[in-house]
Amino acid sequence: MDSRTKLNVGLIGLGRLGRVYARTLATRIPCLRLTAVSDVDAAAVDQVGNELDVEHRSTDPEDIFRNPSVDAVVIVTPTSTHRAIVEGAAAAGKAIFCEKPLSISLDEAMALQRAVERSGAFFQMGFQRRFDRGFAAAKQRLDEGTIGDAVVFRSTSRDPYRPSVEYADPRTSGGLIIDMGIHDFDIARWYMGDVAAVQAIGGLLAYPELGSVGDIDNAIISLIFTSGRLGVVDLTRNGIYGYDINAELLGTKGTLKVGYLRETPLMVMTKGQVAHDTVPFFMERFGDAYAAQLENFAENVLNHRDPPITVDDGVQALRVAIAATRAQQTGTRVEISTGTAPV
Amino acid sequence: MDSRTKLNVGLIGLGRLGRVYARTLATRIPCLRLTAVSDVDAAAVDQVGNELDVEHRSTDPEDIFRNPSVDAVVIVTPTSTHRAIVEGAAAAGKAIFCEKPLSISLDEAMALQRAVERSGAFFQMGFQRRFDRGFAAAKQRLDEGTIGDAVVFRSTSRDPYRPSVEYADPRTSGGLIIDMGIHDFDIARWYMGDVAAVQAIGGLLAYPELGSVGDIDNAIISLIFTSGRLGVVDLTRNGIYGYDINAELLGTKGTLKVGYLRETPLMVMTKGQVAHDTVPFFMERFGDAYAAQLENFAENVLNHRDPPITVDDGVQALRVAIAATRAQQTGTRVEISTGTAPV
Amino acid sequence: MDSRTKLNVGLIGLGRLGRVYARTLATRIPCLRLTAVSDVDAAAVDQVGNELDVEHRSTDPEDIFRNPSVDAVVIVTPTSTHRAIVEGAAAAGKAIFCEKPLSISLDEAMALQRAVERSGAFFQMGFQRRFDRGFAAAKQRLDEGTIGDAVVFRSTSRDPYRPSVEYADPRTSGGLIIDMGIHDFDIARWYMGDVAAVQAIGGLLAYPELGSVGDIDNAIISLIFTSGRLGVVDLTRNGIYGYDINAELLGTKGTLKVGYLRETPLMVMTKGQVAHDTVPFFMERFGDAYAAQLENFAENVLNHRDPPITVDDGVQALRVAIAATRAQQTGTRVEISTGTAPV
Amino acid sequence: MDSRTKLNVGLIGLGRLGRVYARTLATRIPCLRLTAVSDVDAAAVDQVGNELDVEHRSTDPEDIFRNPSVDAVVIVTPTSTHRAIVEGAAAAGKAIFCEKPLSISLDEAMALQRAVERSGAFFQMGFQRRFDRGFAAAKQRLDEGTIGDAVVFRSTSRDPYRPSVEYADPRTSGGLIIDMGIHDFDIARWYMGDVAAVQAIGGLLAYPELGSVGDIDNAIISLIFTSGRLGVVDLTRNGIYGYDINAELLGTKGTLKVGYLRETPLMVMTKGQVAHDTVPFFMERFGDAYAAQLENFAENVLNHRDPPITVDDGVQALRVAIAATRAQQTGTRVEISTGTAPV
Repeated sequence: MDSRTKLNVGLIGLGRLGRVYARTLATRIPCLRLTAVSDVDAAAVDQVGNELDVEHRSTDPEDIFRNPSVDAVVIVTPTSTHRAIVEGAAAAGKAIFCEKPLSISLDEAMALQRAVERSGAFFQMGFQRRFDRGFAAAKQRLDEGTIGDAVVFRSTSRDPYRPSVEYADPRTSGGLIIDMGIHDFDIARWYMGDVAAVQAIGGLLAYPELGSVGDIDNAIISLIFTSGRLGVVDLTRNGIYGYDINAELLGTKGTLKVGYLRETPLMVMTKGQVAHDTVPFFMERFGDAYAAQLENFAENVLNHRDPPITVDDGVQALRVAIAATRAQQTGTRVEISTGTAPV
Repeated sequence: MDSRTKLNVGLIGLGRLGRVYARTLATRIPCLRLTAVSDVDAAAVDQVGNELDVEHRSTDPEDIFRNPSVDAVVIVTPTSTHRAIVEGAAAAGKAIFCEKPLSISLDEAMALQRAVERSGAFFQMGFQRRFDRGFAAAKQRLDEGTIGDAVVFRSTSRDPYRPSVEYADPRTSGGLIIDMGIHDFDIARWYMGDVAAVQAIGGLLAYPELGSVGDIDNAIISLIFTSGRLGVVDLTRNGIYGYDINAELLGTKGTLKVGYLRETPLMVMTKGQVAHDTVPFFMERFGDAYAAQLENFAENVLNHRDPPITVDDGVQALRVAIAATRAQQTGTRVEISTGTAPV
Repeated sequence: MDSRTKLNVGLIGLGRLGRVYARTLATRIPCLRLTAVSDVDAAAVDQVGNELDVEHRSTDPEDIFRNPSVDAVVIVTPTSTHRAIVEGAAAAGKAIFCEKPLSISLDEAMALQRAVERSGAFFQMGFQRRFDRGFAAAKQRLDEGTIGDAVVFRSTSRDPYRPSVEYADPRTSGGLIIDMGIHDFDIARWYMGDVAAVQAIGGLLAYPELGSVGDIDNAIISLIFTSGRLGVVDLTRNGIYGYDINAELLGTKGTLKVGYLRETPLMVMTKGQVAHDTVPFFMERFGDAYAAQLENFAENVLNHRDPPITVDDGVQALRVAIAATRAQQTGTRVEISTGTAPV
Repeated sequence: MDSRTKLNVGLIGLGRLGRVYARTLATRIPCLRLTAVSDVDAAAVDQVGNELDVEHRSTDPEDIFRNPSVDAVVIVTPTSTHRAIVEGAAAAGKAIFCEKPLSISLDEAMALQRAVERSGAFFQMGFQRRFDRGFAAAKQRLDEGTIGDAVVFRSTSRDPYRPSVEYADPRTSGGLIIDMGIHDFDIARWYMGDVAAVQAIGGLLAYPELGSVGDIDNAIISLIFTSGRLGVVDLTRNGIYGYDINAELLGTKGTLKVGYLRETPLMVMTKGQVAHDTVPFFMERFGDAYAAQLENFAENVLNHRDPPITVDDGVQALRVAIAATRAQQTGTRVEISTGTAPV
């Protein structure tokens, strides 16, 4: 592939995940060139720009929108800024990749959705689990009929560390169920279709210090899909043994289970015990999936293909997450409308 | 141990599990002697009596109650007969082992409980999972503090076959949540203490023919323990791949997972695939646990020890199961009182 | 099955394994009755006889041979006594089950074989691994062609404990390769046919105290089957982590792997680690197989079926074991004749 | 790291592995710049040069040796050319990374070694398994004493496909034991030290067509280390189920097992069976290790560190491989001198 057919990308947001994306965009995706970076932190812009020889550098994303040599933007900024940046990029006619979640407010997410739709811009939602080999292989087996009808969906997400109290603050994170569960709800919809109602229970059981911002650290959410099928998602911040992301599809002819527990291919056997390590955290588990989804984005834009994950997927996953949060808080079942009105 | 110190046991009920118990009582428990069998089916009594050389045989359990050479009774009759037989045995002063569930009616179970308590008879509840090596080892590790505080309990029960429509009829089985879930609810209480409230969802998703008796074939039950801790139980009749009973205790310092998937220690590796068999059904998984709980019963009676599983354990597990059934049917959270009143 | 069709068995030898066999014979095999026990240790005879209500008790196996009510004998005495006891039982016309190995001397084993053949007595060799579910399932899959032609056999035997120096003494045990490897060589022959030549290396690497009797504690034996196929057996006395018996058949279309590492169905996951227990020792791994082979013996005698494991199987496995020992000691390849002459 | 401190590398050899190295060198190693490529195939040079924007391109490695802007060379040419190219690079003062094996002739390998030593050039041997997370973690645990003294080493290498008959020809490949086993022998030496003697058996059991060039397809090699410890390596070309590379270190206090069987984190459970995929081939298993060893090479040269794998490591592994080949062919034990004389 010669350089003329490469997609010129501007990256907006150089936080923890943003820097991982920067290196991935700069070195691992043949059909893509990282030509611009932007962040409110000038030092981060300088550092990443120098390390990766990025041509255009700015502390203002508007500079990227105005740059005619930039074909597409990858947005990894804090969630609260997504709407404004997406709207700016859409107005400038850039192809857009936006990291999850769209917003923690359904109203804001739907406003963003309307702006994208009005602009006609290419928009691809970032849910990297769909690009993980295990989740993708399960989807393929499901579609092939290996397990017959999938009747129950189960998903577990466990972080090995408590986030900072500031990060966990529901006013910015949306709270445990939105912050962690949005991935599970997207996968639930990918495999099983729309969700009709949710129930949820939760508690602050391991990290009482999160109580200062009103968050919980464990939750179990039951899902009733519009088809009548069942689902359950459990979330925890105290997966102390390692980063454990797994899922299951129980069907009428079998079951699919996604998720390794271990990372290093070594077993240690000592007196009376067999042991191996666990997956430390998300880059060890999903590093390849993050790269795969960015490569997929570049190929879609270059080849004029529709995005596999749309802005509506982002809105619908958020709708479930918000309903689940409310169900946990009220102890009641919350019905979900998949129409355009908020839940 | 010489023969004078053996416990003389009468077995009441010679159905599928009853016959397994008969052979176990007759051959595998050194401190016990099977001296009487009873069933309404005279042919079954003859067959088992002859095969195992049982001295006293009857179609009427009253004959066992009246027999002074019988020290203890093991009751494996249909659930609907438990109350009358337990009351008869208690009145006769026999030590009693009664298979789960006590009843599918909480009122009836509590009447049985009062009768046992009035009589002062030794009564041990049958929940064989507590004698399974995996479940017992998890309890021990929990008590030792290996995982810190257990904050979330998860339990899965999957039968590999659909029962007959007659068996599944909720008027006799209590319905899926009581019939299968009673074991999970007992283990939940054993590990985590009393349950304060439940939520449940369910559906008839794999075997539409069960609709003729009004049962469901899949359910997910969320548990809130009185301590505020969380639990989730999922039940299915279409565990088509094998008999899968597993559980997990997630704590603040780690996790305990109970349950093998496989039975025969053989892996078969062919082009692109590694495979092994699954556990076929309950005797392969719990055969040793069934024997262990009967041996434990005999030793408790002979040595005047308290039963590890009481009639109250039977009542409380049933209370949760009935509340969960109602939660599934109504879509609402059901609060559970652990007092003497019905839920 | 009524009592008249039961096989009346006399058990000779009440050491560690002999007592396990006594309880198994007395309680777990419906078609068999333990009617006589014998051991040179009168106290052991009394204890076992009382515990299991055995009718005939003696310190002299001749009493069992002379007893017309005994149909069959099970021999679990020290290896050095096998020949004399087998010859006595054969002369008395008893059906014979003899524990491995026949002898540590090939000449003696062949003399025993000739005596059995002259007498026409029913003789079944004890190699319990053939009755293990995993080893048996692998044999079945091999015969079904699942892996095409089996071209390489691998087998590992690891004891978790060092035996006493007295036990390990090669003058009575035959040394590591015979003592432990006889099982592996029998399975090798069962799966792959006769062995044409062996090479072996070994060392005293973990327990220098075994040097006082001239034994080694680790060995690796290469096998060339008469078909030209390959095999390797590795043996160790320092399997400190647990009792590990596993085997593999590599074929042209796949592979079969036999052997669990774990016993209790519990995984313990703590910070950065997933762990489970290991199989403690042989009764946990092969307890059911021991019972199965005794039941098989009883059924064969009662139903006039040929033994699945013959005295010749005992001789041939010993032939390989002795050749392997010599190969280890000399550093040369040792050719094996499967004829009637010693190697 | 700014561009002035990067290592400028010339890659010689653009075959299958060479192209993988080209992409790795061009995109995944921050401290390195791929500035030159060379291959006898001009079309390959053009294709790779264009795809990766390589500045200097040539069909003659001499052009790379003469190019003062090239700091280091990575040699992935056919084994028979290693000596001449290494000598040319060494004479030109380039830092050298050379893929395994050095040669299939011990004389030639030692001549190469002398040339490297005379020139004083930096030389790093390519054995990528040492950079695999599993093999490296086992080495670390071994050094930490987790398993006490390692007394037995086991290693298995299985390719999922037969190579072409031309490739397998022992005149160029060295035959199965050298071609596949060189990795196992290097790891054996890394963990256990020098090898004193070998025994080997082998056969042509799965692919008779390899007989036309005189190769075998299965082999088992026993190793006696100079310490008296034991080892065994088994090699097969018919690992039809997948690419299976595993190893074990049995010690006096435990065991270390290296090697996954599976690649995609998905289990598929259908009636009576649990299955998952296998590792397809070497890039899925060792792709990261290949990149890690090239990055390590670049960092060593830039920072004037000694190579972790020396030319002598290449010579010694070859010495064992050649001795093992001879042991298999002659049926005798072959003693190994680790001095400067050929075996």
